[in-house]
Amino acid sequence: MEKKPRIFIWGMGLIGASLGLKLKTLGYFVQGCVRSEESQKVLHGMGFESVFIRQDEALSALENCDILVLGITLSDSYPVLDLVFSNPKLANRLIVFDTCSTKKDICEFVAQKYPQAQFVGVHPMAGKETNGPSSADAALYEGATIYIVPSKKSEVNSTVATLWKNCGTTPVYIEAAEHDRLMAYMSHGLHFTACILALMAKDVEHIAPSVYPGAGSFRDMTRIAQSPGALWRGIILSNKENIVSWLKQLAHETETIATDLENEALDIVQFFEKANEARNRVMRKS
Amino acid sequence: MEKKPRIFIWGMGLIGASLGLKLKTLGYFVQGCVRSEESQKVLHGMGFESVFIRQDEALSALENCDILVLGITLSDSYPVLDLVFSNPKLANRLIVFDTCSTKKDICEFVAQKYPQAQFVGVHPMAGKETNGPSSADAALYEGATIYIVPSKKSEVNSTVATLWKNCGTTPVYIEAAEHDRLMAYMSHGLHFTACILALMAKDVEHIAPSVYPGAGSFRDMTRIAQSPGALWRGIILSNKENIVSWLKQLAHETETIATDLENEALDIVQFFEKANEARNRVMRKS
Repeated sequence: MEKKPRIFIWGMGLIGASLGLKLKTLGYFVQGCVRSEESQKVLHGMGFESVFIRQDEALSALENCDILVLGITLSDSYPVLDLVFSNPKLANRLIVFDTCSTKKDICEFVAQKYPQAQFVGVHPMAGKETNGPSSADAALYEGATIYIVPSKKSEVNSTVATLWKNCGTTPVYIEAAEHDRLMAYMSHGLHFTACILALMAKDVEHIAPSVYPGAGSFRDMTRIAQSPGALWRGIILSNKENIVSWLKQLAHETETIATDLENEALDIVQFFEKANEARNRVMRKS
Repeated sequence: MEKKPRIFIWGMGLIGASLGLKLKTLGYFVQGCVRSEESQKVLHGMGFESVFIRQDEALSALENCDILVLGITLSDSYPVLDLVFSNPKLANRLIVFDTCSTKKDICEFVAQKYPQAQFVGVHPMAGKETNGPSSADAALYEGATIYIVPSKKSEVNSTVATLWKNCGTTPVYIEAAEHDRLMAYMSHGLHFTACILALMAKDVEHIAPSVYPGAGSFRDMTRIAQSPGALWRGIILSNKENIVSWLKQLAHETETIATDLENEALDIVQFFEKANEARNRVMRKS
């Protein structure tokens, strides 16, 4: 059996620490770094022995690792990529992948500035509306699709794909621009919708003030309105064009359906049937 | 202790049979009727001994019951209400409540045609995207809000409220028109939104055809697009005006947000914070 690569996770919040937990159960050597002593303490409690706070310690530990995972936001990722790829000792050794929700910006950044870097863009299709290491869960990625924007170096791509396959996920190669367009439909636009639905419900606050006035539908359809805005700001700005166009399409479709319903021009049974079919196809149920 | 009222459930699908199961665990005498032998068989298997198919048998069993629950759709409810309230033996004895998702139409029907009837409109805020007796669950209503449109007879109202309270739910009195307006926000409009989101995702079918391209957000926000259209057609037509106005508001809000995002006039962090606050207030979390 091949020797397992040594993993370093830069930023061990929900995304990074969940991967770390899973890799540890598989017998991988996992180190990492975080910004606060509080996070370090939480991670120690979860069984991560080597979690650094000081950057010099992190960089020195990196010299003995094989794969660097960035578990941080897009804007925080740029300076770390600069640190690593401008240091030949690290750049020649490490395979690096990020875990950001958009891929075009980060992949273009690396391709233009560090064309020789062993880097692939990664977006694991899993998450929660909470964040931080205490939200981490070894089962977070179970069965998830993992989008990988491949580099020109096929051995780099396959090393990263194998790591994710070992974690019980399905890696899928995708082009960066196509990924970002897809995400407007599957995630980013939906976060806006959840927020709009929650904001519209302000009008009902006065009804039955002591009880929850809804059922499962409102709870589920606004769940991701709880997502941290500071984190989402970066994602949205990095995919603005696709999201704006998706939102305008949603507004148009909604207006059309409203007018059809008003004018008795909507076949409601067929509308539900077609929606269910469309959902089944996307969910790969048919 | 007072003697428990004897219950008859007309239509034992998800809604009726779930209530029946719960009432049976509480020691109530529960009978009912369904349309098919298939349903009857399923219900026998769940421990319901007296489930009738023939209408004359159902009506004769009703003569020995105290509360009639309608677990059928709005359009199916009208002829049953006519049957019961035009029969003095039943009308004088029975307290009747429906479980439909809209309240204005059914309450006006009874108030105008049978002003002396012992009837209240009920809408339990619980459901699933599946239906039929095999979907029934004694825990379906656990902790749910139950909207009750009260009649002029306070003892009728309190009998129904007590029954629901005994089931571990929270009955809340509401005016019929207010209920229907509220439902556009909390449920009916959301069903349209889920369908529109599912239909929009048709555009992404070609990407990574063998894997599900999304994560939890798409799955959760389109779940209720699986709801049965034939059932929902009646609900929607009975609340058309409120739903049309809600959908137009959604279209307008979405267009506004899209334009603000495009013109860099949207404070994204504040947008998420306000949405989360609004959701928390509706969910009674703050």
